[in-house]
Amino acid sequence: MSNGETFPITDLTRVQRQPARASYDRALAYAILDEALVCSIGFIADGQAHVLPMSFARLDDRLVFHGAPTSRLMQCLAEGQRICVTVTLLDGLVLARSAMHHSLNYRSVVVFGTPVEITAPEQKLAALARLVEHVVPGRSKETRPPNPQELQATRVVALPLEEVSVKSRRGGPNDSASDFDLPYWAGVIPLALKASPPVPDPTRPPNVPVPESASGYERGVQPPRTEGP
Amino acid sequence: MSNGETFPITDLTRVQRQPARASYDRALAYAILDEALVCSIGFIADGQAHVLPMSFARLDDRLVFHGAPTSRLMQCLAEGQRICVTVTLLDGLVLARSAMHHSLNYRSVVVFGTPVEITAPEQKLAALARLVEHVVPGRSKETRPPNPQELQATRVVALPLEEVSVKSRRGGPNDSASDFDLPYWAGVIPLALKASPPVPDPTRPPNVPVPESASGYERGVQPPRTEGP
Repeated sequence: MSNGETFPITDLTRVQRQPARASYDRALAYAILDEALVCSIGFIADGQAHVLPMSFARLDDRLVFHGAPTSRLMQCLAEGQRICVTVTLLDGLVLARSAMHHSLNYRSVVVFGTPVEITAPEQKLAALARLVEHVVPGRSKETRPPNPQELQATRVVALPLEEVSVKSRRGGPNDSASDFDLPYWAGVIPLALKASPPVPDPTRPPNVPVPESASGYERGVQPPRTEGP
Repeated sequence: MSNGETFPITDLTRVQRQPARASYDRALAYAILDEALVCSIGFIADGQAHVLPMSFARLDDRLVFHGAPTSRLMQCLAEGQRICVTVTLLDGLVLARSAMHHSLNYRSVVVFGTPVEITAPEQKLAALARLVEHVVPGRSKETRPPNPQELQATRVVALPLEEVSVKSRRGGPNDSASDFDLPYWAGVIPLALKASPPVPDPTRPPNVPVPESASGYERGVQPPRTEGP
């Protein structure tokens, strides 16, 4: 498995539109994947493209997914089809003087690859713990791990991170000079996914206080960025 | 074009996993589509599923998209392929007493359909104005509209909202009764996409004050929800 600092550019991962916004940097891709909570999985069933949202985690140089063995998606994932997984983080709204230069600031990763099922129980347990840790760091130690029946009832697949591209936009609007003096405001509205204070299970209040992993929950590492691209 | 209160359930849109979380309600689907800022477009190129993030807007009973005429995605969209468009809003992290019952609260919409190119200039202008309004309501009046050259250089396609399904989860964790007394906290961390105060274009400060559309920007209509599903 490749461990280089950049991903090789392939016919599938070469970014065609606005290549200046593209990157193949492994550390950047991993940071975006680690911040995202859901991905969009694209696969083909009956000749038709399907896209489903799904939780995921990065486990070293692979993405891992889990689901019921009977789910169509998990069956597709385990069948050796080359799929496409995309994550997108929204960082801001770009308001330009002209309608055409309105844009979004974002960071996205596109992964192509063929998932492989993980069947060894210890490896499944490690992947499932990672899925919990991905969402709330520290949480896998504050919860009951899967028992053998639950493990049996869960399918886990892994997607190698080999064909990967990053695309992002940041910074302010790119208005044409001829529009600079128009009487319209221009700038960025920064956006971020924010957490509110944890809400205890209303149907059965927990018998322990809120752990730090939840009370201090924060997502993202990116401060609002307004500098030029 | 159908205008019923619910979408017909087709082989493509029938939700197979956890059908209790599914809905075919048109108003609910529209509310989710109107709140989402990006969608994931799934299409097939060279026999391979691709998923790309894209801005979009809902214009009555259609989704509209725009891009450069030379972009591969826009070419695919204009070629009459049946595509899949998915949007996902994250509402919270569900922390259960057991690892297996960890979950995400979310609202998602999946649309299948065949896009149709919009070529009439007035219709293109209306779609482009809607794309700006979708992101920041009121903004299309505070910006220079596309000129004929810009209009010519933009391809616009529309996707009818006919094959549509909604899937969502809300509420607290669904732990098994046998886990209720475990010494682990359980509940929900609500999540929402939040805006920070607008940042003026740093390279060329605008010559007008921040408009209300930007200074009062808020996304979403959903208060944090913690009641049972």
